[in-house]
Amino acid sequence: MAVESDMKYSALSKRMAAIADLNSAASLLQWDQETYMPSGAGDARAQQLATLYGLAHDQFTDSETLRLLESLRNNSDKLSDMESRSVDRIWRDYKRKTCLDRDFVEKLSIQISRSFHAWEKARKEQNFDLFAPELERLTELKREEAERTGYETSPYDALLDEYEPGMKASELNRIFRILLPELDKIYAKLALNRTITTHDTAPFALSEEKQWTLCRDVLQMIGFDSNYGRLDKSSHPFSIGIHPSDVRITTRFNAEDLTVALWSTLHEAGHAFYEMGLNAEARGMPLSEAASLGIHESQSRLWENQIGRSMSFLKYIEPALSKAFDGKMPHDFSGKLHQKLNHIEKGLIRTEADELNYHYHIFIRYQIELDMIEGRLKIKDLKDRWNDMYTTYLGIKPGNDSEGILQDVHWSHGSIGYFPTYTLGSIYAAQFFNAGLQEIPELNHVHTSENMAHLKLWLKQNVFDFGRTLDANSICFKSTNNELDPLEFVHYLENKIDSPQTNTKP
Amino acid sequence: MAVESDMKYSALSKRMAAIADLNSAASLLQWDQETYMPSGAGDARAQQLATLYGLAHDQFTDSETLRLLESLRNNSDKLSDMESRSVDRIWRDYKRKTCLDRDFVEKLSIQISRSFHAWEKARKEQNFDLFAPELERLTELKREEAERTGYETSPYDALLDEYEPGMKASELNRIFRILLPELDKIYAKLALNRTITTHDTAPFALSEEKQWTLCRDVLQMIGFDSNYGRLDKSSHPFSIGIHPSDVRITTRFNAEDLTVALWSTLHEAGHAFYEMGLNAEARGMPLSEAASLGIHESQSRLWENQIGRSMSFLKYIEPALSKAFDGKMPHDFSGKLHQKLNHIEKGLIRTEADELNYHYHIFIRYQIELDMIEGRLKIKDLKDRWNDMYTTYLGIKPGNDSEGILQDVHWSHGSIGYFPTYTLGSIYAAQFFNAGLQEIPELNHVHTSENMAHLKLWLKQNVFDFGRTLDANSICFKSTNNELDPLEFVHYLENKIDSPQTNTKP
Repeated sequence: MAVESDMKYSALSKRMAAIADLNSAASLLQWDQETYMPSGAGDARAQQLATLYGLAHDQFTDSETLRLLESLRNNSDKLSDMESRSVDRIWRDYKRKTCLDRDFVEKLSIQISRSFHAWEKARKEQNFDLFAPELERLTELKREEAERTGYETSPYDALLDEYEPGMKASELNRIFRILLPELDKIYAKLALNRTITTHDTAPFALSEEKQWTLCRDVLQMIGFDSNYGRLDKSSHPFSIGIHPSDVRITTRFNAEDLTVALWSTLHEAGHAFYEMGLNAEARGMPLSEAASLGIHESQSRLWENQIGRSMSFLKYIEPALSKAFDGKMPHDFSGKLHQKLNHIEKGLIRTEADELNYHYHIFIRYQIELDMIEGRLKIKDLKDRWNDMYTTYLGIKPGNDSEGILQDVHWSHGSIGYFPTYTLGSIYAAQFFNAGLQEIPELNHVHTSENMAHLKLWLKQNVFDFGRTLDANSICFKSTNNELDPLEFVHYLENKIDSPQTNTKP
Repeated sequence: MAVESDMKYSALSKRMAAIADLNSAASLLQWDQETYMPSGAGDARAQQLATLYGLAHDQFTDSETLRLLESLRNNSDKLSDMESRSVDRIWRDYKRKTCLDRDFVEKLSIQISRSFHAWEKARKEQNFDLFAPELERLTELKREEAERTGYETSPYDALLDEYEPGMKASELNRIFRILLPELDKIYAKLALNRTITTHDTAPFALSEEKQWTLCRDVLQMIGFDSNYGRLDKSSHPFSIGIHPSDVRITTRFNAEDLTVALWSTLHEAGHAFYEMGLNAEARGMPLSEAASLGIHESQSRLWENQIGRSMSFLKYIEPALSKAFDGKMPHDFSGKLHQKLNHIEKGLIRTEADELNYHYHIFIRYQIELDMIEGRLKIKDLKDRWNDMYTTYLGIKPGNDSEGILQDVHWSHGSIGYFPTYTLGSIYAAQFFNAGLQEIPELNHVHTSENMAHLKLWLKQNVFDFGRTLDANSICFKSTNNELDPLEFVHYLENKIDSPQTNTKP
């Protein structure tokens, strides 16, 4: 019987590996769509992706998958703990996916591609109306998806579950209820100390070509292995893991401000480290997959913020910066960078927001998504609601749709229920970094290629190696001895604000 | 009954379109493998391609395909001529593919990826021994493929048929028996006239960056629409049609000689025009597919040679050349280019060979392939045979394996039986261009964007629009009133040699 279970587990693994290959191909098609694809190929690409996702869906929901899963579940005593948890995860996926038939999946995939192209055009022309009809059709499909998938309290939970298994809108509401007042308090304290001042922008200009080299040099310094990954340019930075040996990240450039490209690159590199560190042997099985988007985001935040915005890091990358400026780095450049990178100021653009105000952006999107999906908010009223909430929470109204409601690609990808994972990521990042510091305390004072490698090893052993055989909260508890706790993130921000380096006025 | 046939033809079309999408995805994976893929991702990519090709094979050889084909063939009187020919083509494909089971197809795909990576390494290290064991395993699989597919006279015919349906080794032997003595004669005449002299290489150097711009400018001048295609860099130039709306070409650069990149680009652009001109509506059906590699190659040759090596063309692109040289084009640059591009000299590298000597390269490869596949030549003796034949036919022995037997990627792709289509392409190109000139005689004297567009339209209507619903020879006969005729190519070369421009000594 044990042998039979082994064979069935093998057979399941083989099926999942083939499906993973189809998904890898689709990932490459998507990467290409946003980097190198000729503009006229959008319709054909949409059809190709629909076919690939449709086939992956067919293969996954095939009766043979069900037969294997049922047999393995009936003999779960013959499986190891890890195998048993893996079977359980795939079973949950199976139930989720069999709610959606192939026609629906293809329809959704085609609508996503259409929406993406409409968003691109709308963003270019600063006109939400060009995107709205496609977003409306997409939102209808996402609501249909939620209904088909099923939920207890809110249809939003059904969508959220795809990105953050087990998470609920009610729990998010609780987190934001704790978090936002604390952020308000820190912001008020800062305002009192009058450290909210306009920072000096002059010295951060650098040609795109030099920024390319700088980004690549820094990637090398933090241990990004270009044998297994690459950096490209796209309108919205992203990372995509085609395989642990093939992880692509992108960035975008602003010739007036090198921090845009470099800190996007650090952010995406954090995602890439997670993808590169996943188990390649168990390809297609939960052991080889990311736990949740919240955990994924914790890795990007950790490298972008805990590491990237520290003075130790800026000292560490000084040689690369100096090279970028041909040896003529502006006076006290690290100090100026540190100030800029930790400068707190309310702004319109999420990806350029500081670590504190960032979560107002997420909260606004979350509220809007929740109301869209729960049917309280019509697409035609979306833009007004957006602009109103930005006025309320951030005190600024977008001057046009491209710096407002069109700034992010995610909705056009059908990613609704995704944004809250950014806030979860910030919280997990603070928790993981604190736990890592227990083992590598010198990271608080100085960065070296050795202690960065040590941190990566710690993350691999304490976070990546579980794959998604445990849920996010369990991984957090195992590696940090604490559950998801927004106050750890609040303390991280408080410490930063109180440090003498940050309090220095420009 | 007619309605039922319509429904079955529709159902077959839908199946074929989905398979075409899988093949499109695989094409993008291959393009990426040779352009942007990180070096460490080779094994994973091999597995992904194997899965995609395996699935495409499964879908194509599914019993449902057979059921539809049999039913349509039994009611072929209800089909239009074109539909009937399409069904017949797919039926032949079906018979060919069902000879090969899925295990074999996957094994072959994995071996191809391994061979490609071994070739890359071997070429870099100028060491055939690093490639030989993989080529040996690959050749064994290709022989097994021929045995499974079946043939009348030579196992080589079975392989050839994949690239040039209906072509046989015996016919190729006949063509080379006509062609080679004529080429010898022209070469002897040239030698007598002492026009074989070393050409002036000095003025052709140009930075890679300027060559990039030059290639892109010239692509635009010949009507390459970058909304539906793109140019990239790879170690061996190639073109790949992912879809008529998404055709990728690559080139390679030699900073000492701009003609390498630009004429490779013209060559690949010719391929691209064919792919872009194919029917996108009948996606996956023979009407949407290229007739044969010989016909495909005729298009690249036509743009590279008949158009590209003419004085009219060089005059036409003078503005782009002048821009590339910042307005300081060397004296009589078009004249010098014309001389260089039409200079006849025996050399080692096929892709840099002149239009005459090129066919000795092909003949050598063809003979070696034939002997490999017919079992008269062992892989361990391959390199010696190569070097011997180069000495005999071209009078030069390669100095190392990279400029000898390792110079081309094709064998590592499992493309055996492919090289002869290059010679067929040259012949068809001469025939198509002659026929096109009947309609657009001014192309002989002057090039304009208008008459180039006219030529492309003529090619589309007289060559591309048949797809592969007719075989290569029938398309040739329809568009030129003549069958495949090596003497038309010989006459084209004779005319060129006799023209005063070419006879001018450097």
